[in-house]
Amino acid sequence: MKEIVMAKKPKMLADLFHEQLKDVFYAENKILKTLPKMQKAAHAKDLNAAFSKHERETRGQVTRLNKVFKMIGKPARGKVCDAINGIVEEGAEVMKDFKGMPALDAGLLAAAQAVEHYEMARYGTLRTWAEELGYPEAAALLDATLKEEKATDKALTQMAKSVINLKAEGA
Amino acid sequence: MKEIVMAKKPKMLADLFHEQLKDVFYAENKILKTLPKMQKAAHAKDLNAAFSKHERETRGQVTRLNKVFKMIGKPARGKVCDAINGIVEEGAEVMKDFKGMPALDAGLLAAAQAVEHYEMARYGTLRTWAEELGYPEAAALLDATLKEEKATDKALTQMAKSVINLKAEGA
Repeated sequence: MKEIVMAKKPKMLADLFHEQLKDVFYAENKILKTLPKMQKAAHAKDLNAAFSKHERETRGQVTRLNKVFKMIGKPARGKVCDAINGIVEEGAEVMKDFKGMPALDAGLLAAAQAVEHYEMARYGTLRTWAEELGYPEAAALLDATLKEEKATDKALTQMAKSVINLKAEGA
Repeated sequence: MKEIVMAKKPKMLADLFHEQLKDVFYAENKILKTLPKMQKAAHAKDLNAAFSKHERETRGQVTRLNKVFKMIGKPARGKVCDAINGIVEEGAEVMKDFKGMPALDAGLLAAAQAVEHYEMARYGTLRTWAEELGYPEAAALLDATLKEEKATDKALTQMAKSVINLKAEGA
């Protein structure tokens, strides 16, 4: 009986790190497909420019993830992430329901911030795990992305307070 | 023709606010159902206690949402939120895949932080919109919840750095 139990390899932090890396790799690629649609839908110039900038940043973030996969000796592969699919689906719903309406930009902005927060949670976790696992270079790459996501979220918050909502109220 | 166009009421920020309030109401109730499962699964005492505390907090947050619905003269009703369903689904997957494994707590912690960040994004947006719409009392209630979510996320980050991950490595 002991052999059977031993045959089941205990799942460690390294396994979890790999799983979550695949999750966020899928998420980033999903976001890359979604950003042009959000950019096209946005009315406010600032928001349009923010989506365009974030698309460029996201490409750089995918490149960083490729490097992290290489560092841990695994192929860069994604795994379906229900969370980002759900978040993106909600954004798509807003685009459909508020098409041509004054509040569309505010809705797009909210959807983008939900995406940013999901990424912030994931990269924060991955960075901490990379440190624990003794991958300082991977941790530095993940931290660089985390900082970008936080900066994007902050910029979107500023936009939400100034331009967008006033427009949504028809002011 | 003009009448037909006018018949389509423009969707304003108030509509978006109501939609997102229903979204987060559904999310909080989903989280209330999920937290006891996460608490049961957690090994570390600190994490177990954190889930228990957050369950109590979440009940208070639902009460606040009920008040906000009342303030805007709408019934307290949820609307299926694909995002939280996806996030919770990922947490359930970790619970299944890492059951009895050393890294389970680290996985639960990561799942909980993804939930917190989703809520932080939504409450941040709702608070800003409440301010814009001239609902200062609703904004104050939403801000109180936002502060709780941020504090919970911070506490989980501290835990991730200290207890949990070392355990996940078998140290």
